[in-house]
Amino acid sequence: MTDTTDVADWWRTKIIDMEPGRIHLRGHPVQDLIGHTSFAEMNWLMVMGTPIKGPRAHLFEAALVSAVDHGPQAPSIAAARMAATCGIGLNSAMATGLNMLGDVHGGAGEQAIALYHHVERAGSEGLSGALGTWRADHGPYLPGFGHRFHKPTDPRSPRLLHLVDDTAETGAIPGVYAQIARAIEAHLAQERGKPVPLNIDGATAVIYAELGCPAPLARGFFCLSRSVGILAHAWEQTEQGGRNKGPTPPSYRWTYDGD
Amino acid sequence: MTDTTDVADWWRTKIIDMEPGRIHLRGHPVQDLIGHTSFAEMNWLMVMGTPIKGPRAHLFEAALVSAVDHGPQAPSIAAARMAATCGIGLNSAMATGLNMLGDVHGGAGEQAIALYHHVERAGSEGLSGALGTWRADHGPYLPGFGHRFHKPTDPRSPRLLHLVDDTAETGAIPGVYAQIARAIEAHLAQERGKPVPLNIDGATAVIYAELGCPAPLARGFFCLSRSVGILAHAWEQTEQGGRNKGPTPPSYRWTYDGD
Amino acid sequence: MTDTTDVADWWRTKIIDMEPGRIHLRGHPVQDLIGHTSFAEMNWLMVMGTPIKGPRAHLFEAALVSAVDHGPQAPSIAAARMAATCGIGLNSAMATGLNMLGDVHGGAGEQAIALYHHVERAGSEGLSGALGTWRADHGPYLPGFGHRFHKPTDPRSPRLLHLVDDTAETGAIPGVYAQIARAIEAHLAQERGKPVPLNIDGATAVIYAELGCPAPLARGFFCLSRSVGILAHAWEQTEQGGRNKGPTPPSYRWTYDGD
Amino acid sequence: MTDTTDVADWWRTKIIDMEPGRIHLRGHPVQDLIGHTSFAEMNWLMVMGTPIKGPRAHLFEAALVSAVDHGPQAPSIAAARMAATCGIGLNSAMATGLNMLGDVHGGAGEQAIALYHHVERAGSEGLSGALGTWRADHGPYLPGFGHRFHKPTDPRSPRLLHLVDDTAETGAIPGVYAQIARAIEAHLAQERGKPVPLNIDGATAVIYAELGCPAPLARGFFCLSRSVGILAHAWEQTEQGGRNKGPTPPSYRWTYDGD
Repeated sequence: MTDTTDVADWWRTKIIDMEPGRIHLRGHPVQDLIGHTSFAEMNWLMVMGTPIKGPRAHLFEAALVSAVDHGPQAPSIAAARMAATCGIGLNSAMATGLNMLGDVHGGAGEQAIALYHHVERAGSEGLSGALGTWRADHGPYLPGFGHRFHKPTDPRSPRLLHLVDDTAETGAIPGVYAQIARAIEAHLAQERGKPVPLNIDGATAVIYAELGCPAPLARGFFCLSRSVGILAHAWEQTEQGGRNKGPTPPSYRWTYDGD
Repeated sequence: MTDTTDVADWWRTKIIDMEPGRIHLRGHPVQDLIGHTSFAEMNWLMVMGTPIKGPRAHLFEAALVSAVDHGPQAPSIAAARMAATCGIGLNSAMATGLNMLGDVHGGAGEQAIALYHHVERAGSEGLSGALGTWRADHGPYLPGFGHRFHKPTDPRSPRLLHLVDDTAETGAIPGVYAQIARAIEAHLAQERGKPVPLNIDGATAVIYAELGCPAPLARGFFCLSRSVGILAHAWEQTEQGGRNKGPTPPSYRWTYDGD
Repeated sequence: MTDTTDVADWWRTKIIDMEPGRIHLRGHPVQDLIGHTSFAEMNWLMVMGTPIKGPRAHLFEAALVSAVDHGPQAPSIAAARMAATCGIGLNSAMATGLNMLGDVHGGAGEQAIALYHHVERAGSEGLSGALGTWRADHGPYLPGFGHRFHKPTDPRSPRLLHLVDDTAETGAIPGVYAQIARAIEAHLAQERGKPVPLNIDGATAVIYAELGCPAPLARGFFCLSRSVGILAHAWEQTEQGGRNKGPTPPSYRWTYDGD
Repeated sequence: MTDTTDVADWWRTKIIDMEPGRIHLRGHPVQDLIGHTSFAEMNWLMVMGTPIKGPRAHLFEAALVSAVDHGPQAPSIAAARMAATCGIGLNSAMATGLNMLGDVHGGAGEQAIALYHHVERAGSEGLSGALGTWRADHGPYLPGFGHRFHKPTDPRSPRLLHLVDDTAETGAIPGVYAQIARAIEAHLAQERGKPVPLNIDGATAVIYAELGCPAPLARGFFCLSRSVGILAHAWEQTEQGGRNKGPTPPSYRWTYDGD
């Protein structure tokens, strides 16, 4: 082992410590984690650095399970399926889809946590004022509320909120973000005169906020979750076959808009 | 809903069925899966199409847990950390790393399953003949055996094999691929006059083969597993900060090899 | 500057030599290249390591120009356009499309060069025998010939071949690969009883082979060429707007194939 | 051809018009472009939609040539080289690097154009006021000025500015952005008491602004330019060989920062 410390120090991590024959992850020998730690618990331990157990782990697992797929009309899934017919490996087909979970496709949960924190900090200013200052910065639409497809209700949201309530009753989480989300939902319903319900991004954001995640990790964990659907679709397409699958059947073309 | 069936039929899937207010994944209402299905079980259900439960689920979970990280000397992890300092989102930093889990970096498990299947099919021909025909096609090195770093033993492999044995005793898996892997390991030790132990790719390949996965999904599931480490490192680097992190400290440069 | 040579030596290159205030690319001061070297010439110099000038540069430029785009039915273009609506940067939208130019979507030129080299090596064995041994290894379809859309003729191929002939007359290239490609084309027409004309991959492969490129660089240069179309489409989609653009209009869905 | 116009209309483009045997790019038959249009001119035509010729084309070409590479300490180049050893295709190795040209690694040119436009709009307010309002929004550092490596001067910038001046003298470009950039440079030198010279991003931004590009295309064109260096390095690494190349020699490891 060369001991030029500036080179080794260029790469610093609290995540993994390793010697030949020895791998410690977040301070735990890997062989002790294998067989004793669930995959969801491992996701949390690796990313957050602390163990998660019991009702909190159960709630985290529910969030991961809920967002695995929303079908091949989602651009990330469609792209991964097309990629699987282009002669690249499953890993690269998955990367193609994952790369598309950007601010618009994958960022609503992250933005919803930021919104909840904003409302929480507002405190005595009240919800109405907090939403006003939020909208002044970010525009009229509130991340985490409303859905262009699932009307009136996305079946995942009430189920997730129900689990949040159960977990809050055990004292394992504060429950404050569920209250904030419901208050926003009620405010929007009154404002618009019709329901603008909490959607899947808003509901998983409640869970991640309750568990103490920084906002950007709502996107990070969503990426881990949706990667499951991306793999499932890329593999199904691989088995279906096809070469250079385009977005529509080959008999269709595009509309030429030029002169 | 437009009913031009050729367009809808261009995108066919057994994975997800959806109407407004209704999402079924592999035939199950998503709200019934949330809270009742572990994330590992969900990974299997989505990708393989069938439920996994009990000892088989436990074994699958162990494989997923075992491969989450091997440190920032791995090019996928280093690249994800560098990407996190380049002004792209966490999803894109993750995609950067995932994209690199190709035939060499992420393909050994897939190749090891193919090797096990080859040895299994050989049957009466015997192990020695089977390895000979394999090597004639693929070269001298056998995927899944030996490690340039963990000498003498990768701590993950014996732990995983131990779990395979326990599961085989319950009758939940056949146990035949563990036998094949051990036979290859013994053969290599005799051939080289020193241990060439089963490595993590070979050990997880035993599990995926025992569970009935097609070989390419060993890479697919490895990608889901390593994505956890990729996210953990990309996020840690994000918190450490830095701009355009290169591979070595800026005081180093490269060697110019030209005239 | 730290002088731990093993670290600097880990990164060795003949491409670039640099000191503060000094950048040499392939041995040339960058300020001498700027304004005196065309972008196409720079592509060749950087990748191949030697200058390209005159009729050879003109021919190389024609190959780069010819393959920039084939429309949004190509999965790489469609994916880049979808990516541009997902909240990621132009660079990541481009990477999404580029990543899909794999063995099937981007590999035909590379395979066609390999085919031409195979036919060339066959020599006295004759064309028929060479195609037979090629097909025994690679299957019945010959890379670079036939097109599912442009019937009878892709307008780019005869134009490129014409430029190859003109250049061969100057003595700047041997012209042998154009002969081989035409011989294969004639052979296929006789074999099938109808034209199976040289396509764009086969035609650009003739050029890259005439110029002395290794086969994998046919893919590399195709990637540089198609990146232009990928950027054009990603940018046009950015200006058109949209959020999470799917493959088909939202009123369409997919066909559920499950039970 | 199915004529369900809503499907075809979902993909609208002014870039390409196609029928069997006919390809028009930006209104020009592709066979007329091949051999008559340089690759740089084609880049502009495809992305901007209008032809570029003469001194403007010459200037555009200089910008593309100037930014092709800055060596393997750049994370995009290092990642592409590492990727080339991981068992993925050249296209995917290139995509790995390209994906990293984000806001920090690839965005300075785009930001510099925005800065120039901001200063231009300020008009009578004067430079000092304009820089003040810019910094209030974006922080103290001005994009396009200063370099951590090339001190005192990046050799590319004066060469590019010289070409801008020559072109402005012909009347082909207004020359106003070169004036703005020089005014900022002089302002910074006075402010800091030492030179903070225009860097490559600032210099190419002058060119793109003079030519009338929207700011985001400074990143787009930079991506096309740097892709050349990415391919050159990925290919050189492919020929050098290696498997799973990490950031530093294997004898080095990282510093474990945990407890």
